[in-house]
Amino acid sequence: MSDDRVVRTTSAWRLEEGKLSPAEARVIVEEPLEIWVDGALYAVVMRTPGDDRNLAAGFCLAEGLVDTAREFGGIAECELEDANRVTVIRSGARAAEPPPQHRARMAVASSCGLCGREIVDDLLARAPVIDRQIALTTGELLALGRRMQESQRHFRATGGTHAAALFGASGEELAFGEDIGRHNALDKAIGRLLLAERLEEACVAVLSGRCSLEMVQKAVRAGLPVVASVSAPTSLAISLAERAGVTLVGFLRAQSLTVYADTGRIEGVSA
Amino acid sequence: MSDDRVVRTTSAWRLEEGKLSPAEARVIVEEPLEIWVDGALYAVVMRTPGDDRNLAAGFCLAEGLVDTAREFGGIAECELEDANRVTVIRSGARAAEPPPQHRARMAVASSCGLCGREIVDDLLARAPVIDRQIALTTGELLALGRRMQESQRHFRATGGTHAAALFGASGEELAFGEDIGRHNALDKAIGRLLLAERLEEACVAVLSGRCSLEMVQKAVRAGLPVVASVSAPTSLAISLAERAGVTLVGFLRAQSLTVYADTGRIEGVSA
Repeated sequence: MSDDRVVRTTSAWRLEEGKLSPAEARVIVEEPLEIWVDGALYAVVMRTPGDDRNLAAGFCLAEGLVDTAREFGGIAECELEDANRVTVIRSGARAAEPPPQHRARMAVASSCGLCGREIVDDLLARAPVIDRQIALTTGELLALGRRMQESQRHFRATGGTHAAALFGASGEELAFGEDIGRHNALDKAIGRLLLAERLEEACVAVLSGRCSLEMVQKAVRAGLPVVASVSAPTSLAISLAERAGVTLVGFLRAQSLTVYADTGRIEGVSA
Repeated sequence: MSDDRVVRTTSAWRLEEGKLSPAEARVIVEEPLEIWVDGALYAVVMRTPGDDRNLAAGFCLAEGLVDTAREFGGIAECELEDANRVTVIRSGARAAEPPPQHRARMAVASSCGLCGREIVDDLLARAPVIDRQIALTTGELLALGRRMQESQRHFRATGGTHAAALFGASGEELAFGEDIGRHNALDKAIGRLLLAERLEEACVAVLSGRCSLEMVQKAVRAGLPVVASVSAPTSLAISLAERAGVTLVGFLRAQSLTVYADTGRIEGVSA
């Protein structure tokens, strides 16, 4: 596995010591892996390429599809370059079981011929474009990051939660969610505004955790033009943000941040 | 929602400034939530209780089950106390659609009558007990934490990965996995040893991320007696570890750690 399938370099803008400048950023690669078991698609897992056979083996053990290595008849990666499929064949008594029921970790509209890659192409092609124009300074973004952290009451108590805060055009906090899961935290905040029929007032989502594809997908579904995360974005999160016109900010810290995708919303960043 | 459904206090042992003492630890609650849509179980999500209606609403939007709040005919929480079920009814044209296909985020053996709670009871009752006796000092645990961090090559490059390392009885690193997902990182490390038929040599799993129920489940399936995480455990992770005889350590940092569950494996901790 060459390192460029695991880590990718992308153009970004970085704020450091009060100065915003172009930078090269290294981002971790996220791609779907199809795990086929006994001839049927069992799961699609979002993962970093590499160790795919080991990942499939460990996943099958955790899911109870095998108890020992001897129950594997074979585990093969797809032969195509940059493939995103692993095929598991079970042996012995396990092979006589009916194939396990499909268990998706990721919503998949349809399976595909080209080892998972088409899932992503299809998903990017179908993404709506968010063209809401708002203007933000990097100072305002840093302030929203601090405000989100002030709201993290359960994190201060336990150190075990993620959080998501949604802010309006004037920087007012409209909704906040806290949960053991970063997906749930964002669903809670978005759901609160959806039920109040105020979702269109939300402009910026600030997230405590890493920003993967699914987090940007949720933002796109909710029509949010700006997503800013305290932690790192994945390669696919950046691809979807670029495609959907979402401004994507990562490593939002006390005095610094990195802009991975923008469409003219952040002052000082030019495409 | 009272705070004790969100944050729970548990007895633990804490190492600070070289001294190991009993402590009260506050942990974030993790419980399953069943989301029923149009009369059918759609998903079971592991979450922190609270904001369940908002969580269900945001989840339905993200999943494409609704596009606007008007497509909800109603969202109701189960009336039982401590319930873990939300029922969503869609209206208008959405109600005429066939009920959405079940999409689990969590492996569920069978649905249940008592709003998700039986899922957990059943899972705890069926957990095998790991009775392997090994002896560890807190100093050895701190050293394993440092060793895991030294192996996090892609994290140093991108800040965007989780990691899991498996160590043997003499502290040797047997396998390492790094991935955008903490579940995948552990699956990769366990899968590597499983395929090499060396899984029974592994004694300690060190994890970079939060330790939820599913992480302990994977450790139990792999027969690992000790799980130590750099971050926080959830309430259910602790419950399963206690039940399955897994030694569970959290907040494994440079000079400190917290022991949440033990069965005599760590020197200086008494039950």
